[in-house]
Amino acid sequence: MGDPRGGDSQPEADTPLCLALDFGGTKLAAGLVNWHTGALLRQARCSTAGEVGADGQIEDMLALVERHLDLDGREWQALWGLGVSFGGPVDATSGTVLHSHHVEGWDGVPLAKRLERAFARPVVVENDANAVALGEFRYGAGQGVRDLVYITISTGIGGGIVLDGQLWRGSHGVAGEVGHMVVRPDGALCTCGNHGCLEALAAGPSIARRAREALQAGAWGAQMLDLAGGEPQNLTAEMVFRAGRGGDAAAVAVIAAVAEDLGLSIAMLASIVDPARVILGGGVAKAGEQLLVPVRQAFRRYAFPMLAEQVSIVQAAALDEGGLLGAAALVAQANAGRC
Amino acid sequence: MGDPRGGDSQPEADTPLCLALDFGGTKLAAGLVNWHTGALLRQARCSTAGEVGADGQIEDMLALVERHLDLDGREWQALWGLGVSFGGPVDATSGTVLHSHHVEGWDGVPLAKRLERAFARPVVVENDANAVALGEFRYGAGQGVRDLVYITISTGIGGGIVLDGQLWRGSHGVAGEVGHMVVRPDGALCTCGNHGCLEALAAGPSIARRAREALQAGAWGAQMLDLAGGEPQNLTAEMVFRAGRGGDAAAVAVIAAVAEDLGLSIAMLASIVDPARVILGGGVAKAGEQLLVPVRQAFRRYAFPMLAEQVSIVQAAALDEGGLLGAAALVAQANAGRC
Repeated sequence: MGDPRGGDSQPEADTPLCLALDFGGTKLAAGLVNWHTGALLRQARCSTAGEVGADGQIEDMLALVERHLDLDGREWQALWGLGVSFGGPVDATSGTVLHSHHVEGWDGVPLAKRLERAFARPVVVENDANAVALGEFRYGAGQGVRDLVYITISTGIGGGIVLDGQLWRGSHGVAGEVGHMVVRPDGALCTCGNHGCLEALAAGPSIARRAREALQAGAWGAQMLDLAGGEPQNLTAEMVFRAGRGGDAAAVAVIAAVAEDLGLSIAMLASIVDPARVILGGGVAKAGEQLLVPVRQAFRRYAFPMLAEQVSIVQAAALDEGGLLGAAALVAQANAGRC
Repeated sequence: MGDPRGGDSQPEADTPLCLALDFGGTKLAAGLVNWHTGALLRQARCSTAGEVGADGQIEDMLALVERHLDLDGREWQALWGLGVSFGGPVDATSGTVLHSHHVEGWDGVPLAKRLERAFARPVVVENDANAVALGEFRYGAGQGVRDLVYITISTGIGGGIVLDGQLWRGSHGVAGEVGHMVVRPDGALCTCGNHGCLEALAAGPSIARRAREALQAGAWGAQMLDLAGGEPQNLTAEMVFRAGRGGDAAAVAVIAAVAEDLGLSIAMLASIVDPARVILGGGVAKAGEQLLVPVRQAFRRYAFPMLAEQVSIVQAAALDEGGLLGAAALVAQANAGRC
């Protein structure tokens, strides 16, 4: 793969393009992005079976770019490089994937090198939460500040931290693991083995579990139960928020409790990091102000007083394209000052 | 003040000296330090009445340097500058004190400018927890790592963060406010107005309060009570640790509970910052391994599994001279690469 036209020549500076690739478990996305402005010119998405493994997913991604993004000669000419948002831990320095929690065969795959060979362009690889944090900083809800914490709330809870305009990865590459702050030591069991992690309290499946527990405990949740077709085990976080908008008492109480845990966690991390802004993304954050209003209230209640009115808590700008814009931001970061 | 000999000449590079000043509430300390090695050549200390105000304290500090440090001509010649550790919030950029919680008249005092006039040398001013964090990084228990969190546990709990060898002050200058993480939302009232802050659980006075509460609740604390002369209101944290070493059941239980809260807080901040090392200083940390062993156990229990064995928790190297070495580290930082 890669296009011989313009392979080694200098890309045109007035149209600084990049390929943005998002390996998200069993969903792949590719985009052609102007990394200077963050404009997403074209994108393509597909699902891949987890069983195809790492090699199969790389093949699928190459096919997605070739068949669906369909770059013309001028675009190849303007292509500065590739950014990759990967759904799992990576060694960003070498561009090597460390592990995927969803797909076999990724351990130790030198993804940057593989893609550099295929496209004859420089490649930057980053963990997805970090990439999205950088994308929001550069193109999204983080514009105008230098320091932010990005929190993604979906199947799990992860995070990325930008300090003075740079990603902060930590001493062991796990900085921003907001989901594994033990905010309620006597709380529910988390996938990591601890109890009361934020992820076990406020991730999508945890919200659904809390709603089921509320129903089992006899809370009044007729709308929620209706949405789940009368079967509590079919409940999703999205149904809880929908029922909450309809005034369902059990849903409203669960959302309040989840917002309390999120606001408390944000207050604690703000006391440590002192960011200018906290950005919530991921599927659960699509609830928007329904979630943000009570999260902000809880934050103010628990925050170090000097910070209570100083830290803004906002929704991510790129809820569905976060991974692609994050990948583009990696290319922008690598070429800072060159365009 | 200041010495005309060598006032404007370049100091000698082979003996890079600085004056280190520590304004700590109602205690003042001054030291002559080789900022390259951290060797504390001479030091002097005194108490000042809070009533003398900011101007009085500055006068007292100048007298302390002049009468007790007594620099000779060669030392003035080798003096690169002054570092100041101040016990309260400062604007480090301008060297201005924002506030003192203990002494009137400090709001807005341009301390760096005042001292520059007095000594004809450059002056760096920093909040004490930040200064000590930098001192431990450069000369103390933080040697060998690039990223650390320093936590001081004394009358209150504060902290300082060094990331990639630089102080991280945060967007509003309050990064590292470890003491105001709300670790037990239903816990005791804190001086900041919130409930269950780490400071309200594990600072010296809070440890004494927990011991008193344990005695009131009927716990077996005969040794502790003896040390306090039979008066629970005379209890101090130091007595609690001493009684704990003697096997006093109530003291042992209080220390275990305090260590649990500290370990939990450190686990949470480690999930966010991902430091290589956490350093405990301040009066309470003088308990050493008696405190550190249960803190490490609690940390491992609550830590994100990948970090449980990766983050070392150690005692500060400079328990009594932390402020002076921190002040010297500020000078070293300002002259990085010049010696």
